[in-house]
Amino acid sequence: MFDVSEVTVIAVDVFGTTVDWRSGVIDGVAAIAGHHETEFDCPALVDAWRERYLPAVGQINRGERAWANLDAVHREALDECLEVFGVAGKFGAEARERMVRAWYALPPWPDAAAGLAELRRDFVVVALSNGGFAQLTHVVKGAGLGFDAILSAENVGAYKPDRRAYVNAAKLLDAEPRTILMVAAHTWDIHGARDAGFRTTFVERPGEKGPDRPADAAETTDCDLSAVSFADLAGQLRGARKGVDAGH
Amino acid sequence: MFDVSEVTVIAVDVFGTTVDWRSGVIDGVAAIAGHHETEFDCPALVDAWRERYLPAVGQINRGERAWANLDAVHREALDECLEVFGVAGKFGAEARERMVRAWYALPPWPDAAAGLAELRRDFVVVALSNGGFAQLTHVVKGAGLGFDAILSAENVGAYKPDRRAYVNAAKLLDAEPRTILMVAAHTWDIHGARDAGFRTTFVERPGEKGPDRPADAAETTDCDLSAVSFADLAGQLRGARKGVDAGH
Repeated sequence: MFDVSEVTVIAVDVFGTTVDWRSGVIDGVAAIAGHHETEFDCPALVDAWRERYLPAVGQINRGERAWANLDAVHREALDECLEVFGVAGKFGAEARERMVRAWYALPPWPDAAAGLAELRRDFVVVALSNGGFAQLTHVVKGAGLGFDAILSAENVGAYKPDRRAYVNAAKLLDAEPRTILMVAAHTWDIHGARDAGFRTTFVERPGEKGPDRPADAAETTDCDLSAVSFADLAGQLRGARKGVDAGH
Repeated sequence: MFDVSEVTVIAVDVFGTTVDWRSGVIDGVAAIAGHHETEFDCPALVDAWRERYLPAVGQINRGERAWANLDAVHREALDECLEVFGVAGKFGAEARERMVRAWYALPPWPDAAAGLAELRRDFVVVALSNGGFAQLTHVVKGAGLGFDAILSAENVGAYKPDRRAYVNAAKLLDAEPRTILMVAAHTWDIHGARDAGFRTTFVERPGEKGPDRPADAAETTDCDLSAVSFADLAGQLRGARKGVDAGH
């Protein structure tokens, strides 16, 4: 194991890692569709919506398009998805805004709140997410999660997995990259953090992409640690720190 | 009273408003001076140090000097004060860095933690401070305060009371200025927030500047509300909301 005693900050991804975005957004969109008495394959639309996210932020990171926060990225991708699913005529601007806001109220994974609280006893624990700052503030509060601070792509001026997203976060936190442990359920995020010099923990969220699509897996992720929950991570770190303290 | 039902976000100043910077910094500097077996009027030096803060950030806001975060501003002002107090030769770079870090560990005012927790039940409660992002994260955590998010001058690209500091914060929070209630113990902060369209609450901290210098006072501050503690503010807001709910 790397030298855990160097770690002072734990940076935690939000969507998929601490909250179940898929269930939350499906519920939110289905409720709006119900009000409009419109039927379509809601989980499939939400999956298609999410699939447009990384390509869009990649374009922004490469400077191929102007900065837009995640709400704006979501709105554009939603408009496309509603066309693809043949229901674009059913939803006006107000309903679409409410669908975008479905990404503001998402259920936490069951272990998240207690596990983050445990980690905060020993570390500065921050959210480091591609969500907008306002969005993250609402997601975190609504899910009952506690962070010492929230860092949004809007604060750092770039989206993960761009190296700037991690480097700028380290600068704002006044912490050397090797003293920051990134915790995420996505291989691309772990690899981005690793390439910026962060320590990394892959946390397994097997249900993140729903019952029919495999989630990212620890076996195919180059990470320093892997864990099945935040409590598991807290236990591993405490054990490693005791080992360090004991001179092992 | 203004329409309290419009308020969704409470933005809270930190130094002087939620934490007792003066006691904390005096203790920290005195400890370092003691280690160096150097005697000087420590409270007077800390007061002189603080007095250099608003002029320095004013120069930055006016573009007369490049951006520097509060640690850098503090370091420069400390160097000047140590000269003025005739002890510059006693403290090298490492001791001076530790003095700057005295601004990272500050005791909360007694009502702050419980009062903020009460406010968070009804509102999104964020820190909005001129402190650096890392500094604020440590101050807030060390003082045992809970915020939904931290907004630093570093995040908004300008120092209070510059209008941009409030306007950019409102943008990051995706909230109209009139829906944000600024809470601060300083007249200049309240007036800056008011001029940017925020609602305002002056909270009295009579001991903020020590026993010999008067703190800012509600009577000479143009604010929407004044309070003697965060619990007092929470009570006033709850009463006003009940009045609104009852149709008064």
